[in-house]
Amino acid sequence: MPAKGADLSAHRETADVVVVGGGVIGLSVAWRAAQQGQQVVLADPQPGLGATHAAAGMLTPIAEAAYAEREIFGLGQDSLRRYPDFVAELQAATGLPTGFRQAGTLQVAYDSDDLAVLTETRLLLESFGVHLQQLTARECRAAEPMLDPSVRAGLLAPADGSVDPRLLAAALLRAAEQAGAHLVRQSVTEIRSAAGRADGVRLADDSVVHARWIVLAAGWQSAAIAGLPTGIAPPVRPVKGQIIRLRTTATTDADGVPPGLLQRTVRGIVRGSSVYLVPRDSGELVVGATQEELGADMTVTAGGVWELLRDARTLVPGITELEIADIVAGLRPGTPDNAPVIGPCELPGLVFATGHFRAGVLLAPVTADTVAAYLRTGTPDPGWRPFAATRFGVRGVSPPGSPGPEVAERAAAGMQVEEAATAWR
Amino acid sequence: MPAKGADLSAHRETADVVVVGGGVIGLSVAWRAAQQGQQVVLADPQPGLGATHAAAGMLTPIAEAAYAEREIFGLGQDSLRRYPDFVAELQAATGLPTGFRQAGTLQVAYDSDDLAVLTETRLLLESFGVHLQQLTARECRAAEPMLDPSVRAGLLAPADGSVDPRLLAAALLRAAEQAGAHLVRQSVTEIRSAAGRADGVRLADDSVVHARWIVLAAGWQSAAIAGLPTGIAPPVRPVKGQIIRLRTTATTDADGVPPGLLQRTVRGIVRGSSVYLVPRDSGELVVGATQEELGADMTVTAGGVWELLRDARTLVPGITELEIADIVAGLRPGTPDNAPVIGPCELPGLVFATGHFRAGVLLAPVTADTVAAYLRTGTPDPGWRPFAATRFGVRGVSPPGSPGPEVAERAAAGMQVEEAATAWR
Repeated sequence: MPAKGADLSAHRETADVVVVGGGVIGLSVAWRAAQQGQQVVLADPQPGLGATHAAAGMLTPIAEAAYAEREIFGLGQDSLRRYPDFVAELQAATGLPTGFRQAGTLQVAYDSDDLAVLTETRLLLESFGVHLQQLTARECRAAEPMLDPSVRAGLLAPADGSVDPRLLAAALLRAAEQAGAHLVRQSVTEIRSAAGRADGVRLADDSVVHARWIVLAAGWQSAAIAGLPTGIAPPVRPVKGQIIRLRTTATTDADGVPPGLLQRTVRGIVRGSSVYLVPRDSGELVVGATQEELGADMTVTAGGVWELLRDARTLVPGITELEIADIVAGLRPGTPDNAPVIGPCELPGLVFATGHFRAGVLLAPVTADTVAAYLRTGTPDPGWRPFAATRFGVRGVSPPGSPGPEVAERAAAGMQVEEAATAWR
Repeated sequence: MPAKGADLSAHRETADVVVVGGGVIGLSVAWRAAQQGQQVVLADPQPGLGATHAAAGMLTPIAEAAYAEREIFGLGQDSLRRYPDFVAELQAATGLPTGFRQAGTLQVAYDSDDLAVLTETRLLLESFGVHLQQLTARECRAAEPMLDPSVRAGLLAPADGSVDPRLLAAALLRAAEQAGAHLVRQSVTEIRSAAGRADGVRLADDSVVHARWIVLAAGWQSAAIAGLPTGIAPPVRPVKGQIIRLRTTATTDADGVPPGLLQRTVRGIVRGSSVYLVPRDSGELVVGATQEELGADMTVTAGGVWELLRDARTLVPGITELEIADIVAGLRPGTPDNAPVIGPCELPGLVFATGHFRAGVLLAPVTADTVAAYLRTGTPDPGWRPFAATRFGVRGVSPPGSPGPEVAERAAAGMQVEEAATAWR
């Protein structure tokens, strides 16, 4: 393990691991890899300012994917179980808060159609062996007095939690740097390969960092990075989400109502439309999130904000008194089946940790732990199987002007290249 | 007239006129007074950043006051007639734009109750001798194709206009300075008097500017200024308004639809709730405004934004596609009867130009022209009579620690002090 912060210039030429992307996934991987003594370079021009910045921070492993629902739910549960230790370790190492709370999630239904969807969710979870507590309308209001009287029923998941993703990212960056990881505030412009193996990256200033492992954790931008052999880019696309951060000016707690109005995360379906409200101890209440397929569009729109406020105030009328502290749009990395892409791929040395869509914050601990283990042992985690990039077949097209290395031809021909990934199938 | 910009330090001791407050009213008065050769000091720590900053800029002289409706409407019409020359002169002097448009206002009704209110408005205006064009639902949509098909009827005021108040304030400041006015970026902490006459102001840095005339144009803060004799403070209070500035990313004009979706200002009553949408040539569309009695509260709230978006999208569904560029709250100076307070008062030398509530931008030209004339001639404008502060009787209370001068005792006793104001009654 290198001396902390020593001999690590922006132009260092070699590392054990280059992590491409400093969102909550890349930061967590960098921290864990540095902790196990690997020399880590983390490249991101603006760490923490991508999808992480616009995330609400719900830690709610509800299966929302069209694919591998049980496996995704299991991965989320696994990650949620790791969270208390993960944030405790982080806070002990850095002294920084993460806003972690474990107050549960109450999922509620507003009308009878919504109730039908809630029932489906309950039956799905029961098919996974998870039995959540069903609450009547009265019990919902007893649990959360600020809920609208029209709320019909609820499902209580007491172990669910939340973090403040902006605090989490700041703590992770500090922890990673303390563990010896070196942050380079630059974009990666190219993945480089030699002899059929990824062996480094090119940075925006044209310098090159060579490394044994390249971890691609660049969120929705992971698909467009130059230098990937044809057909292996992870099939991620930007899915826009808008969130609103509300806050109270009052810090007092007059009638036992917390400053952010709620005790726990409330998710709801309001006339078919999904909304969630995540309280923070600071008194902030985060309302999210829209889900829009508009390409790399980051504008905050009248319609998105109106829908969020409409649905949030339907469930919790008291939000109308709260101040709007912030409205942001972010681009989550969606995949064709809404499940993440984790693990090695056809190009040896290249490891994916992307496509986490709306679950990046939840899945950060399990992703980081298992990726770090792989970087140490070379043995893929068995739990990754449903999340292998190869499930999508030949993927994407390399950007023009970036002819892939030798392996690209092999990949295009369907030859031999799968060997790198099949070891752990 | 002094040499432009010459010998005018922040600590100059005398001026002909001190204007307290650099909103659109104070700036206009300073400009006009400087133009006629008077030495003008304008004091405001942040000119243009009060109610002006949060104004939509509608130039629509619809009577909304509970008091002197005909006179207020007449004052608005008078000011609207002055606008084309006012902004042309301003632009010629400074080369700066004001966003002035004269495309009319279409006032629409959404349901039958709203239609009844629209009819009342029409009848009131007809009682003033103003006959606006009534539009059917079909004619409304022909005039503004982006209107919702449910709009029931409309009233078209073709001469109404709009400006961009932020551009207007910037141009007025430049023009006033070019004409020789001196901006002091400080608060006025006290109005000073001697021998029964206002004779200067104290600034935040404790320096004093003596002047023959003090024009109080400090918006909602006009009531709280120290040093006013008991009972003469203008009875203004803060009335919060929230507005949303929307904008299109598209600059093209594919189907003849302007970038801001509308050709002209649309005012509407949606299920009893009032909303307006003011397009700008830049493609911006301003949606306003809430009206809230919350004291000096400037928070942008979830409820305020939700109401504006709800009502605006009810009238013009296409706004949902627009980007939210900005949401601001401002404090308009309301008065007990919603009419402004203009002209001299019981304290000779002190001139009010405040309480313009939601009509400050509209009323700036007429206020500035008539106040400047008074500063030159000492003769009050006959049109001011309905807007005299004395209509409210003895008003307000001086802040503690600021005992008024000799005249205060006379004012409190109801003696003699009215003489200053009665000259023009």
